Amino acid sequence: MRIVLTTPAWLSAELARHPEAHRDLEQRVRFVIRLARLNMEHETGGPFAAAVYEADAGRLVSAGVNRVVPMHCSTAHAEVMALSLAQKKLATFDLGAAGLPRHQLVVSWRPCAMCYGAVLWSGVRSLAIAGSDDAMEQLTGFDEGPIHPQWREELAARGIELFDNVLPDEAIAVFEEFHRRGALVYNARRDS
Amino acid sequence: MRIVLTTPAWLSAELARHPEAHRDLEQRVRFVIRLARLNMEHETGGPFAAAVYEADAGRLVSAGVNRVVPMHCSTAHAEVMALSLAQKKLATFDLGAAGLPRHQLVVSWRPCAMCYGAVLWSGVRSLAIAGSDDAMEQLTGFDEGPIHPQWREELAARGIELFDNVLPDEAIAVFEEFHRRGALVYNARRDS
Repeated sequence: MRIVLTTPAWLSAELARHPEAHRDLEQRVRFVIRLARLNMEHETGGPFAAAVYEADAGRLVSAGVNRVVPMHCSTAHAEVMALSLAQKKLATFDLGAAGLPRHQLVVSWRPCAMCYGAVLWSGVRSLAIAGSDDAMEQLTGFDEGPIHPQWREELAARGIELFDNVLPDEAIAVFEEFHRRGALVYNARRDS
Repeated sequence: MRIVLTTPAWLSAELARHPEAHRDLEQRVRFVIRLARLNMEHETGGPFAAAVYEADAGRLVSAGVNRVVPMHCSTAHAEVMALSLAQKKLATFDLGAAGLPRHQLVVSWRPCAMCYGAVLWSGVRSLAIAGSDDAMEQLTGFDEGPIHPQWREELAARGIELFDNVLPDEAIAVFEEFHRRGALVYNARRDS
């Protein structure tokens, strides 16, 4: 049995336009917010995106967008897509393995309960998020699940640095547009 | 870009031997514990398995085993595999959608922090686990991550019933064998 998950065609064109490196953290976060917006505009998934960068050099390793609805797969969140593509590219389940540069996951908002766990297992040594308060859930209606109350400390305990609130207003502008469109909130059992 | 995850060849043979239905919950849990053991013995992934059943009729919808190391994919846990295969089979991201029978995820131990979130988003209305205490982490050395202290209540709040401690001793026997073998614990950044 096979599971096949794909990124939308427009994403390849975006990646082709990405410069050699984004040395600046705000550039990286702005890039994933742009991908989140494009995913909403193209109607190819939810309004979320993520990318894996080499933390120090700023080279882009992979990028992913939310693909839950088109892929019929509730785990196809942007973080899972980006992390899996990076691991495939580097042929390792551990982006923190010996000999690799430090990797950073950049996300357009705080990861949900599932993706928070995915970050821990991925081997990234750095997490950068546009913002993390409840504005996204309130604007969009998405349930992000019960993340652990000490989620920041639990990252630190595993050697994962956190950059929070890098560009919250730019990310929230995407969620406001999502709300204006009345787009599909795909949390399971909405009718239950 | 594509992510492709596959189940091991031996699993298809096991599924071919599965009866029409397992009406009894212990039969379902015993089946996934058997898959967990076989995955360890065949060295096709970690000692964990999961399956999606129709909760009431007991028909098997899908089964998955841990595939992290062979697939180079840290999110390829048994639960993610089983849930994704069930959603692919039924062509929906929501196993709890209107018109579908109630679905149950059966797992050979309490899901890790990531897979706990995956359960919430999958649409299953029932979760059955062989056991949930810290015996597994202590025996195997796996880090299961910071699951929310109210994880049981958070399941209930989303309409997901829980059957815990269905067959803990049989599941723990697999982890003891894993420990005896000195098999690979694939948590990321083990060398950090």
